[in-house]
Amino acid sequence: MSRRIGFSTMRYENAPCIISGAAIVGPTEGEGPLGKYFDIVLEDDLWGEKSWEKAESKMFEEAVKLTLEKANKKSEDIQLMLGGDLLNQIISANFAARTLRIPFLGLFGACSTMAESLLVGSALVDGGYANEAICATCSHFSTAERQFRFPLELGSQKSPTAQRTVTGAGASLLSRNGDGPRVKYGTVGTVIDLGIKDAGNMGAAMAPAAVHTITAHLRDLDRTPDEYDLIVTGDLGALGSDIVRDMIKEQGITLGSNYTDCGCEIFSKEQDTHCGGSGCGCSASVLNTFILKRMREGVLKKVMFVATGALLSPTSSQQGESIPGVAHALTIEM
Amino acid sequence: MSRRIGFSTMRYENAPCIISGAAIVGPTEGEGPLGKYFDIVLEDDLWGEKSWEKAESKMFEEAVKLTLEKANKKSEDIQLMLGGDLLNQIISANFAARTLRIPFLGLFGACSTMAESLLVGSALVDGGYANEAICATCSHFSTAERQFRFPLELGSQKSPTAQRTVTGAGASLLSRNGDGPRVKYGTVGTVIDLGIKDAGNMGAAMAPAAVHTITAHLRDLDRTPDEYDLIVTGDLGALGSDIVRDMIKEQGITLGSNYTDCGCEIFSKEQDTHCGGSGCGCSASVLNTFILKRMREGVLKKVMFVATGALLSPTSSQQGESIPGVAHALTIEM
Repeated sequence: MSRRIGFSTMRYENAPCIISGAAIVGPTEGEGPLGKYFDIVLEDDLWGEKSWEKAESKMFEEAVKLTLEKANKKSEDIQLMLGGDLLNQIISANFAARTLRIPFLGLFGACSTMAESLLVGSALVDGGYANEAICATCSHFSTAERQFRFPLELGSQKSPTAQRTVTGAGASLLSRNGDGPRVKYGTVGTVIDLGIKDAGNMGAAMAPAAVHTITAHLRDLDRTPDEYDLIVTGDLGALGSDIVRDMIKEQGITLGSNYTDCGCEIFSKEQDTHCGGSGCGCSASVLNTFILKRMREGVLKKVMFVATGALLSPTSSQQGESIPGVAHALTIEM
Repeated sequence: MSRRIGFSTMRYENAPCIISGAAIVGPTEGEGPLGKYFDIVLEDDLWGEKSWEKAESKMFEEAVKLTLEKANKKSEDIQLMLGGDLLNQIISANFAARTLRIPFLGLFGACSTMAESLLVGSALVDGGYANEAICATCSHFSTAERQFRFPLELGSQKSPTAQRTVTGAGASLLSRNGDGPRVKYGTVGTVIDLGIKDAGNMGAAMAPAAVHTITAHLRDLDRTPDEYDLIVTGDLGALGSDIVRDMIKEQGITLGSNYTDCGCEIFSKEQDTHCGGSGCGCSASVLNTFILKRMREGVLKKVMFVATGALLSPTSSQQGESIPGVAHALTIEM
């Protein structure tokens, strides 16, 4: 029996329920407009650890634990965890999985990981391969800066198109049964590269992939954007989300005021983060607190969540490669 | 309807068929005992590219194309690709996905990626979320050395417990219909760490995860090792596979002469690779040529394929972390 619609969209017949979600963020994120929604706001981004990398892994682990607690579950009851992060060899996720001891599928979709983990996790729960699945991801400003850009100690100035990697971890618990928002459809993204080479302009690099996936999702479901209460991309920021509006208009589709981007919502203009937030933790923390809460309250009934990833490494950039992007989309309905 | 057996094993009701497989390897692998089975043996490991990283990505891409060709398929017909590699941000897989333009789910399971991709891909095909799925991975001796160890130009001497990263890419095409070996069961691995810190002894670091997954797979399926014609781990090498035999014996399970490791098979003793082969490409190239061929010939009917991954990064090692391992297991039957 086919659970496929169109070319690249999966239909989750039993529509797995997101029975709980949680997010832990850093101090700057806590000071932002969504600060009050996050479960834990750290006072400092080392969180008592000896390195930022260890702190990032702890954030992943604790976000998972918090999500399970909210659903009155223990980690030993959970049969499946899916997730990843931005660090080389996804060490944040892998080291958290070591402590949690939940059977683990590691993913790498850069900042699209929250959507990728929900997309695969929903299929595995929907199809009866697991009763529950915990989906999680994280990112950390200080680990990302030194891995992808410059050591913080250099005090490098950012370009106006740059975004700030969110220090944040978010997790969702999917279950066949329960109450809450349900994941109904998922579209697997295609890797798209229109030739952007500026690693200080990730929004522009990822925008074409977002457009490709949003149009595929709408086409496969035979829907228009106005059928959604919210269409939200992951971390395109101010410039990237403007590009999405422009590019999608060229295809005859207009995104109205129901379109926004997690990277534009998480920081205020006064926080001077240039184009906004980025990183896996950006969409993960916004989805798993603010958006899920609004859905449970009935304010949002139909949401398209489209997390986007820039698929570069310092090595690929040094070798002159441009930056491909990918985006995965989900329709989540209350 | 549950497709779960025991705690961590998935049952693929419709048992997706591996309708084709292919592998491309480097010159040293071509000179090894399995040389004649590989589809393409490179004369030099740059393959006409400007960097080893670009060559590695090309190997991934061409292995996918070759696998599709063998099944008379075009990339535009395929709805789903799953895979990854060892490089930071899985650039080999991501850049290949950019050219192939098949909707792509990036995975990171280190050297367990071939099993991880087949495990998830089989569920998505089995459950009707995709008609076909191409699963692929690769590794490259020269890119791995400079990323994980030392620049080749240093001419560093290897420790006796070291393994040689296989230059190789392998791909499998899964389909709901067709003839060939079928994937019947998959066990998702748990991340296990017994405290090994020596990055020159990956076999020992991964062995406990392999033991954990093999015993879970046998327990969930209520089977004994002698029911298999072949139980094959991914790239534990000589030392790691000996540790598996010893550790599993302590649990009252004896692995007989039907147990081997792809890392022990791909190089001969005379090739002086110390403990044998490693890397995602090791199990991927052995499975997708030698093992699948033996299955199609009827020599092997029931195979347990257990690819193993060491989940370290240079950063985690520098910060004093030990090396966790993970292993995913599949039962493939003719």
